[in-house]
Amino acid sequence: MKMKPNLVITSVLVSVVLNFWKPTVQAQDLESWNNTETKSAIVEFVERVTAEGNADFVPPEERIAVFDNDGTLWSEKPFYFQLAFAFDRIKELAPKNPQWQDKPILKAAIDGDLKTVLEGGEHALIEIVMATHSGITTTEFEEIVNQWIKTARHPKTGLRYQEMVFQPMLELMRYLRKHKFETWIVSGGGIEFMRPWSEKVYGIPPQQVIGSCIKVKYEVRDGIPVLVRLPELEFIDDKAGKPVGIHKFIGRRPIAAFGNSDGDLEMLQWTTSGDGARFGLIVHHTDKEREFAYDRDSSVGRLDKGLTEAAEKNWTVVDMKKDWSTVFQKK
Amino acid sequence: MKMKPNLVITSVLVSVVLNFWKPTVQAQDLESWNNTETKSAIVEFVERVTAEGNADFVPPEERIAVFDNDGTLWSEKPFYFQLAFAFDRIKELAPKNPQWQDKPILKAAIDGDLKTVLEGGEHALIEIVMATHSGITTTEFEEIVNQWIKTARHPKTGLRYQEMVFQPMLELMRYLRKHKFETWIVSGGGIEFMRPWSEKVYGIPPQQVIGSCIKVKYEVRDGIPVLVRLPELEFIDDKAGKPVGIHKFIGRRPIAAFGNSDGDLEMLQWTTSGDGARFGLIVHHTDKEREFAYDRDSSVGRLDKGLTEAAEKNWTVVDMKKDWSTVFQKK
Repeated sequence: MKMKPNLVITSVLVSVVLNFWKPTVQAQDLESWNNTETKSAIVEFVERVTAEGNADFVPPEERIAVFDNDGTLWSEKPFYFQLAFAFDRIKELAPKNPQWQDKPILKAAIDGDLKTVLEGGEHALIEIVMATHSGITTTEFEEIVNQWIKTARHPKTGLRYQEMVFQPMLELMRYLRKHKFETWIVSGGGIEFMRPWSEKVYGIPPQQVIGSCIKVKYEVRDGIPVLVRLPELEFIDDKAGKPVGIHKFIGRRPIAAFGNSDGDLEMLQWTTSGDGARFGLIVHHTDKEREFAYDRDSSVGRLDKGLTEAAEKNWTVVDMKKDWSTVFQKK
Repeated sequence: MKMKPNLVITSVLVSVVLNFWKPTVQAQDLESWNNTETKSAIVEFVERVTAEGNADFVPPEERIAVFDNDGTLWSEKPFYFQLAFAFDRIKELAPKNPQWQDKPILKAAIDGDLKTVLEGGEHALIEIVMATHSGITTTEFEEIVNQWIKTARHPKTGLRYQEMVFQPMLELMRYLRKHKFETWIVSGGGIEFMRPWSEKVYGIPPQQVIGSCIKVKYEVRDGIPVLVRLPELEFIDDKAGKPVGIHKFIGRRPIAAFGNSDGDLEMLQWTTSGDGARFGLIVHHTDKEREFAYDRDSSVGRLDKGLTEAAEKNWTVVDMKKDWSTVFQKK
């Protein structure tokens, strides 16, 4: 058989491509990940579950990956960014709420007395959130968050908070979505604090964000339906609450979970104890120069039991200093 | 310019296709819908929001459509199908729970005394659900639902419950998804009663099913993580609870809502009062021969205020008898 010259060229090209083309990782896919064991572990897992015919193949509709937010997708030091938002809100609202001066925790927050607030633990944080996040409609709250996230700056780096998102994690989420994973946020932070910007910043739409929440009530005001935020806690999406939140919102067990603190322990246990191939990963903050370094003794984002259990259960641990060539989002 | 013959043919074909091709409705798209105003209203709305450049264009990520389940996607007579499931469960569990004989509602359910149960209203239904749907793990419950839905049969038609799904609504959901809508269920029924089969029957994955739920708790039993269902009500996704459930799970206002009873009124109000093009539709059960006929006076699936408000607000009302050429799912 005689082939026309352009057909010959095409055939040669096709066979070259078929022989050298690696279907899963391309150079630009995980470019901020150094070529360490951590990157290999991620790529190997994705190849195992996406290769048709493989014993560990998982159909696309079951490829659910869950990500903690604070400390996993963006920084969380010197304290959760939502607390900075709440502090800004409480100062703005204080003049109209003189009764807050009689409440020690709220007064401390107004005065910027971080030490007293943090010593009050979870209850203090909840009290501040109740005071500052309720009493308005969901639409009003969304606008306030949008305004804040565009303008507020981190006290240490001077960056906007959205600029402190981790570049390697953005690449990882894109890489997973490219392989037909659904990427979800499962955070102890407020669901309505994240949803206004999660799609733009992370590529995750609001309906794939799970978080803590206060109650909301439907009302018709002058003929216009609104949803009003109530000063009543509904759900804390942290620790043993994370598998509960996952079950409630997704209704199906994830096959991969990504966290960074002991608050993510139960989510990692629940995810990795399912049948078939599973993947658990913990981001270990080891880079004092480029970000922050902390683990077993930290009050915010403590990683103690998680580090021990990661070794026992073969979860992958990211050493930020060693594994990431870039930390914060590239401009 | 001289064109080669095959180029000329291609050009002619392209212009023929461009002139006659109607992009949105093809014959098979909504084939169980008669050519009435109802069908036109649906098609016109979809064309308005999906035509790029149109003032009412909605980007795909905001094309959220919400569907009630009982009476909207499948029948709900003589009583909600989940109640039939609960009755079957309570009879099975009764021998091991002799204490139920002392509780009038539970005893009535065990004895099949439907009248007493229905007279007890919502509280009676909740008591029965608490008794029969809790105390086991989420995995165990899922298996029980799967087994029941495969085998149980409707008392009047003798059909399996899944065979009483409405064919026109299946076509409508497929038509919307083809136009990049996300289709969600927002039901007063139990979220975990629907999720095991919603993907297979409706093409709706578990993470797009919203419903009423009881509390769930994370536990590690002999080293194995489980989620245990507790006899404690968490959320009723009905009436004013529907916009609340939509906000919680989706975090974005739908642009189209489909219901059939006054339980869907607030969902229709919330959806259709947003900015831009909106669509509200009510399925009116008018076909005594092929299904059931009921509205303002029915205890199950009452449609009274909704029918009045539909006229005021220009919601589309399906007249099942007139608008649907087929009622139940085709085999």
